[in-house]
Amino acid sequence: MSTEPYQLTATEVLGKYKSGDLTVAQYAESLLRHIGARDNVVKAWAYLDPDQVLEQAKTLDKVPKDQRGPLHGIAVAVKDVIYTKGMPTQFNSPIYENDQPEVDAASVIMLRQAGALILGKTTTTEFAANTVGTKTTNPHDPTRTPGGSSSGSGAAVGDFQAPLALGTQTGGSTIRPGSFNGIYALKPTWNAISREGQKIYSLDFDTIGLYARSVEDLELLGGVFGLKDDEIPAPITAGVKGLKFAFLKTMLWDHAGSGTRRAFEKGKQQLETAGAEVEEIEFPPDFTKLPEWHTCVLYSEGRVMFRPDYLKAKDKLGRFLQSHVEEAHGYSRKDFLQAFDGIAALRPKWDAIAEKYAAVVVPSVPDEAPSGLESTGSAVFNSMWTALHVPVINIPGFKGDNGMPVGLSLTLARYNDMALLNVAKEVSKVWAE
Amino acid sequence: MSTEPYQLTATEVLGKYKSGDLTVAQYAESLLRHIGARDNVVKAWAYLDPDQVLEQAKTLDKVPKDQRGPLHGIAVAVKDVIYTKGMPTQFNSPIYENDQPEVDAASVIMLRQAGALILGKTTTTEFAANTVGTKTTNPHDPTRTPGGSSSGSGAAVGDFQAPLALGTQTGGSTIRPGSFNGIYALKPTWNAISREGQKIYSLDFDTIGLYARSVEDLELLGGVFGLKDDEIPAPITAGVKGLKFAFLKTMLWDHAGSGTRRAFEKGKQQLETAGAEVEEIEFPPDFTKLPEWHTCVLYSEGRVMFRPDYLKAKDKLGRFLQSHVEEAHGYSRKDFLQAFDGIAALRPKWDAIAEKYAAVVVPSVPDEAPSGLESTGSAVFNSMWTALHVPVINIPGFKGDNGMPVGLSLTLARYNDMALLNVAKEVSKVWAE
Repeated sequence: MSTEPYQLTATEVLGKYKSGDLTVAQYAESLLRHIGARDNVVKAWAYLDPDQVLEQAKTLDKVPKDQRGPLHGIAVAVKDVIYTKGMPTQFNSPIYENDQPEVDAASVIMLRQAGALILGKTTTTEFAANTVGTKTTNPHDPTRTPGGSSSGSGAAVGDFQAPLALGTQTGGSTIRPGSFNGIYALKPTWNAISREGQKIYSLDFDTIGLYARSVEDLELLGGVFGLKDDEIPAPITAGVKGLKFAFLKTMLWDHAGSGTRRAFEKGKQQLETAGAEVEEIEFPPDFTKLPEWHTCVLYSEGRVMFRPDYLKAKDKLGRFLQSHVEEAHGYSRKDFLQAFDGIAALRPKWDAIAEKYAAVVVPSVPDEAPSGLESTGSAVFNSMWTALHVPVINIPGFKGDNGMPVGLSLTLARYNDMALLNVAKEVSKVWAE
Repeated sequence: MSTEPYQLTATEVLGKYKSGDLTVAQYAESLLRHIGARDNVVKAWAYLDPDQVLEQAKTLDKVPKDQRGPLHGIAVAVKDVIYTKGMPTQFNSPIYENDQPEVDAASVIMLRQAGALILGKTTTTEFAANTVGTKTTNPHDPTRTPGGSSSGSGAAVGDFQAPLALGTQTGGSTIRPGSFNGIYALKPTWNAISREGQKIYSLDFDTIGLYARSVEDLELLGGVFGLKDDEIPAPITAGVKGLKFAFLKTMLWDHAGSGTRRAFEKGKQQLETAGAEVEEIEFPPDFTKLPEWHTCVLYSEGRVMFRPDYLKAKDKLGRFLQSHVEEAHGYSRKDFLQAFDGIAALRPKWDAIAEKYAAVVVPSVPDEAPSGLESTGSAVFNSMWTALHVPVINIPGFKGDNGMPVGLSLTLARYNDMALLNVAKEVSKVWAE
């Protein structure tokens, strides 16, 4: 059985373009056929216009070879909290139904400059700030959630409807769908990629998220967005052999179910078997309040960010977001500052710990995707890393009790995004075995 | 000579509406006549359509009295880096000439909900990130700069073309024009008011700024934006008598010219004469690097934020902003993190110092507005407070060697915005004597 273009990774598609074996229009048609066949089950899209996609594809095919960008003709799905010219941005909020500000987010400007084909907008929970599920289902089992808030982007990449997608993460909105849909997901260092034109929930935590079906594809997309460490990571020539990994269960390990517990042990054994040095570590005691501080900052910043929509159309705002504005959480400004300053003081401390390792392995999720579409699941294992601003990548490779995907996360110190991807490539090979 | 409506403060206009002595249409006509007479000199506007203003005014006049918001019929000028439906947003950049995304910034949503009349867009330096002057002149002397980057907003309020205006501050872009134009200017606590829909230069520093010709008007506008301290400030009944003020020259006092030096001494004496307790203080030694850290964070975040426009249209981007993206500044990611974490550690230290006083008095500017329109002047005395996230208010009342306005700033700990306005009301009376 021959491989259809929609099944390829972005890097593979670029290879086909280069060799002249594929046109952008052919690629777009393949994707659209597959989406057409699957959309009634997965429902990943908040907006997709096949004619608009084909028109873009034809325009891209006319670009002379020497003027093509690094993402020429590569389809990208964009979470519907990120502004896109020519397409509505609706935030899954009735307040913004059919709203279409003609502006491109910073990330979308960079995508277009690189020659990407913007496929459409993917579903999100309300303002990427709620855990109430969307219409989207998990491509591995339509009775289960694809996670959230980047529900559509995670499901679209997991279901081969797009090779690349943009999500966002404020708690665990990128990594959780990554694990649930069995794909690679990168939450870069906070503010290493411009978040302009992306809905704000928490200014301190909101980060753009990247989805792909290979680490190479994440490197490609990260490069387009300007991700760069101080030093170019040295090529790894002997796999994980001799590399030193830390495994950190975190203070919330009680939340880990059987899928994550098994993945943690198996992942560790596989790395050891492959010749890596593995050490189990714990957070120092001063990190204890980190999860609580994340919640305090999140709800307090949510109070500020949802005030305009609350004033405009309170009844159309979810109860959870209304409660932020009404300060139902009970956090004072003083509480907020203690949390804000407390987290800030932990960041360099974490960096100093992480710098001793090739990567630190941590849980991505409590377990495989739960049943039902009502809730997108829990971000307990992600929020702390979002707060610490560090890069995190979900690597798939494990299974839960029901055969659904489970991933593990690798993290490092801030601004070691490319180093993280570099080592993730090797780890992904070991865990895929 | 009777007072024309355009000369009134926002609070006074609201009184006239309440008593039935003025309609919004009459008020708008008065403002437009004055703008018409002065615009060829001051040139504060990047966009203003008189018909659109009058149409808004007539619509507002039809709103039943019991449905009117707290800013009903109050004219507000909006800096042209803040999105407004129905008006272009051009950032003083050729890249965005005539661009009009149909979206309201968070601040503009709140203004409209409160019944404000959006007058138009005021000039800004390029992306509010450059110190190259605009066409706008200082209303007190057209051969001098009104400051920047909020050039048009400062000049419009200083010239009675609007009672209220929005600016932004990343270095000194709100406080500097406040001092140069002889008006009240509030840079609130960072992130206490949503910055959504306002161009990003530095995510850590960008703050919305408020202009008015009285402290009462700033309180009014701050209330609309949801500014609130943990505790409602106690009413001050005996003026500044018995209040304790700190005067802080900062580590950059060498930059102070004769106007600021005189204001500093006179302001101190006036407060003492009025019965206040005055103490001169200095920054502890660990604050020494604060100005340098501000620059490092600013340029590093500018690298991220201007990358999309650089990729899109490098040649249309000012050389200074190009140099951010090209990392001509030479700051590494590691330098950035040291500065970012260093500033974060100073914030609670500053709060602890400031909490001992009714307010801390600091310079607003090196001196009165300099001659020429080429440069908008220096932000040396503002950047440190922007970095510390604290509220700052410029209070006018002094003069430079050429009779141009000079102000002094009051600052406090974070989230003491309403307390700062409360004490500023009393100080402004003393300095106006």
